[in-house]
Amino acid sequence: MRVIDELVANAARYAECYECPGAPSEPRLKLAIVTCMDARFDVWSVLGLRHGDAHVIRNAGGVVTADTRRSLAISQRLLETTEIMIIHHTDCGATKITEDEFREAVFRDTGIRPDWAAEAFPKDPNGDVVQSIARIRADELIPQRQRVYGFVWDVETGELRRVKA
Amino acid sequence: MRVIDELVANAARYAECYECPGAPSEPRLKLAIVTCMDARFDVWSVLGLRHGDAHVIRNAGGVVTADTRRSLAISQRLLETTEIMIIHHTDCGATKITEDEFREAVFRDTGIRPDWAAEAFPKDPNGDVVQSIARIRADELIPQRQRVYGFVWDVETGELRRVKA
Repeated sequence: MRVIDELVANAARYAECYECPGAPSEPRLKLAIVTCMDARFDVWSVLGLRHGDAHVIRNAGGVVTADTRRSLAISQRLLETTEIMIIHHTDCGATKITEDEFREAVFRDTGIRPDWAAEAFPKDPNGDVVQSIARIRADELIPQRQRVYGFVWDVETGELRRVKA
Repeated sequence: MRVIDELVANAARYAECYECPGAPSEPRLKLAIVTCMDARFDVWSVLGLRHGDAHVIRNAGGVVTADTRRSLAISQRLLETTEIMIIHHTDCGATKITEDEFREAVFRDTGIRPDWAAEAFPKDPNGDVVQSIARIRADELIPQRQRVYGFVWDVETGELRRVKA
């Protein structure tokens, strides 16, 4: 609980200085961002986001799963976003496994094979950005599927590179 | 593309000042955080996170879906995290819909009912934090399920409140 206590103390300091800017729940930039859970990627700082600017959806790999599509459908249908950024990054954990290795490791430890894909992808994340965009374009439950932009963030240099889809 | 161009320009400024701290992909605090995609919740600032500290998993509602559990399993199995924080927040979009209303609205527009739950929850987010923790505890594919801590962040005051599970 030591780590948690420290973060709770940080949050109390944050609250002391918090002046509720009264932003609505609808993101000001009408943007939803899909990216990886990676601990080195501070999305707000990298993109210069401000309070109320954009939805941020994150999971292992920054991949477009059923849950990502649920979040995007809600983001657009209820909260009026119209554009999507997909951001993968270099040195991602998803590039260091294969589906088969992961499944068998889980099976060895638990006697159960996951009924979901780990969503491993090859070392070059560009290709997976392209297929993530394709997954979004194929989902009719996401109303706005035209303005979807792909990027890779470089953990070594801090640079954000556009991926042409 | 105007919005995206602005964010890309922000990212270029970020990269100019980026000094790769060389943090490993394994989070320093051995922590994974599950929270909502809400545009007003800057997790890093609220919790005082630093580069490389913690995985951040975000979706509509900050709910524990199959994809959340996939991300947590990968976080713990491949990247050595052992603790989990679940953070819901006040004024969440997930409290403003019902499953039935959402399904029927999607059906009216597209002729398709989603084959996933919207994951609506009642106005008081505390109860859903408790059941989110229960979903994690019930998943044998997540190795470390004891140290799971629940919180609600108040959009009005900036305060983070613990939820007893």
